[in-house]
Amino acid sequence: MKVNQTHYRSIWPINKAGRDVVAIIDQTKLPFAFEIVEIADYRQMIITIKTMQVRGAPLIGASAAYGVALALQQATDDRYLKQVMAELLASRPTAVNLAWAIDRMQTALFDLPESERLKAAWLEAKAICDEDVALNQHIGQHGLQLIKARKAHLNKADNAVMNVLTHCNAGWLATVDVGTALAPVYAAHDAGLSVHVWVDETRPRNQGASLTAWELAQHGVPHTVISDNAGGHLMQHSEVDMVIVGADRVTRTGDVCNKIGTYLKALAAADNGVPFYVAVPSPTIDWTMQDGLAEIPIEMRDSQEVTQMTGLTETHGLQTVTIVPSGSPAANPAFDVTPSKLVTGIITEAGVFTPATLTNKQDIC
Amino acid sequence: MKVNQTHYRSIWPINKAGRDVVAIIDQTKLPFAFEIVEIADYRQMIITIKTMQVRGAPLIGASAAYGVALALQQATDDRYLKQVMAELLASRPTAVNLAWAIDRMQTALFDLPESERLKAAWLEAKAICDEDVALNQHIGQHGLQLIKARKAHLNKADNAVMNVLTHCNAGWLATVDVGTALAPVYAAHDAGLSVHVWVDETRPRNQGASLTAWELAQHGVPHTVISDNAGGHLMQHSEVDMVIVGADRVTRTGDVCNKIGTYLKALAAADNGVPFYVAVPSPTIDWTMQDGLAEIPIEMRDSQEVTQMTGLTETHGLQTVTIVPSGSPAANPAFDVTPSKLVTGIITEAGVFTPATLTNKQDIC
Repeated sequence: MKVNQTHYRSIWPINKAGRDVVAIIDQTKLPFAFEIVEIADYRQMIITIKTMQVRGAPLIGASAAYGVALALQQATDDRYLKQVMAELLASRPTAVNLAWAIDRMQTALFDLPESERLKAAWLEAKAICDEDVALNQHIGQHGLQLIKARKAHLNKADNAVMNVLTHCNAGWLATVDVGTALAPVYAAHDAGLSVHVWVDETRPRNQGASLTAWELAQHGVPHTVISDNAGGHLMQHSEVDMVIVGADRVTRTGDVCNKIGTYLKALAAADNGVPFYVAVPSPTIDWTMQDGLAEIPIEMRDSQEVTQMTGLTETHGLQTVTIVPSGSPAANPAFDVTPSKLVTGIITEAGVFTPATLTNKQDIC
Repeated sequence: MKVNQTHYRSIWPINKAGRDVVAIIDQTKLPFAFEIVEIADYRQMIITIKTMQVRGAPLIGASAAYGVALALQQATDDRYLKQVMAELLASRPTAVNLAWAIDRMQTALFDLPESERLKAAWLEAKAICDEDVALNQHIGQHGLQLIKARKAHLNKADNAVMNVLTHCNAGWLATVDVGTALAPVYAAHDAGLSVHVWVDETRPRNQGASLTAWELAQHGVPHTVISDNAGGHLMQHSEVDMVIVGADRVTRTGDVCNKIGTYLKALAAADNGVPFYVAVPSPTIDWTMQDGLAEIPIEMRDSQEVTQMTGLTETHGLQTVTIVPSGSPAANPAFDVTPSKLVTGIITEAGVFTPATLTNKQDIC
């Protein structure tokens, strides 16, 4: 997608004086600074993932794949490669795409002679990225049909606005390009349909206010930032036509693990007859899991993400402010699980499935 | 309640060199500064209410009552008094206690000769404050019984912790003293029951993180601040034993208008079998209203409350930071309505009512 009219992906390889490095957009600096960071070492890539300079389930997977490629510049033997993959896998626990990408790199590399592994790793990482973009484009087209169908169902006039609520950032910044939850929004906007996005701020890290708002603004899509508390009220007053979110992991039974607070929006959608859609490429589906609430590991992050906030001051540039009294502890579960009963549909590259029809991997992958 | 071991109310009259003024705690400065502001003029009181230096339904009512008393220092005729009352009434739209207090001042003053009005106004404002404290103490005792009953229902050991989730601030700072939603918590803590409070941050104005956390810490009640997004997840994992919130207006049918986001917590409570209680003194009940969603006016506040946040920096003192990109608009509905179907009980000074039994004003007032 575009940044100041120039097309970018969220991650890409660069050859610097004969050595391959990986470039990423530092998402902790957005929306106030657009900074590209070059990563030359897999340990730096792990830090980049942990600190959420890159984040979003598909982008975490792509980053880990490139992390393997970077590591192979140091050594190529089995033992080292296994160690590197284990370290990358441990960088964040919740998104299944990370394990999927590592698994795919393993399959692509272990049977090769050591001398061929480095080149193959760069090619496989690039393939993972290119495929992510293609999957998301398909998600966009399937989701566009859902938006059109919902508009028809609501008997809206041709020029009426469709209001989509989203939580966190599942836009192009969360993927390699195009996005998952925002792919249908971009497809609709580009097709000339009038869409407006209610952007949940998404505390504590504010990925909605900082990333989703920023990328929608860059693409010219009308949107309004709201506190995470506001969505239920807007649904009660028919201000939301549909909800589309991304996910970090979806079980084969249709339970959806996504950014903390997603479950509350799903409850409100169900209570108000608003369709609740989850847009994910197939690598986000964990075919081994039946019960999301019991089985998906939920990352507990640093309480400072709750007690502090960073933003732009008028006179002192970017500042971090403390917003909780020093004597008060904070807790920070980063994800929650929305049970399948609240999910209207799961938008994948292969089409739209209900939790009940999402049973066969063969139908999708 | 106590601040640094000294007892305070949230509002009190002071005689300064023969002239009566009203002291308040500037709640926009908490938790980082404890500043007392003296108000000598009713127009200043209106600004104090609008800017939320005082806030919370019962305290807004008390502040308006003192506003009338301050105004009568200038003139005492009917026309002026009506004008003053209309201006005070318009300062904030959602809390019914404001209209209740103005109505009560009108009843107390209009039949009196002009010469007696000033003195009567100060007495009536003080009576409203003293009664608020007494009502809240009763709420505390009724709520304490609910906490004990819930603990027994859950078969918890005597020394086990009861976890109460609350949204926004309905503590002593929202009232004249003691609080509404926190009155049962203080009563339990003071009675030696082990209680822990999950404090919803309560975006966009962070009354939970700044006021509830601060007053619980001052009183020594264990608590943990969480993002507004986290409550549903905690309820799914049995980390919340009951929810207690305050309200700005409750209809005779039991619909509850409270700080934006309350509705989402009520949905999660219902979905997880967690009792959802609303603690209000009778002046918060609007006996004229049947349908909260259709009838209660919802205040839309400035979008800067969403796009900016104030906190303490390490080097530059209190700073306001912008957290939303400049090209992105924001919307800020300040309250939502929780339908009565989601309300387990309404804790009043006269006891605990279900929405179905909350039908007769005579039973309560």
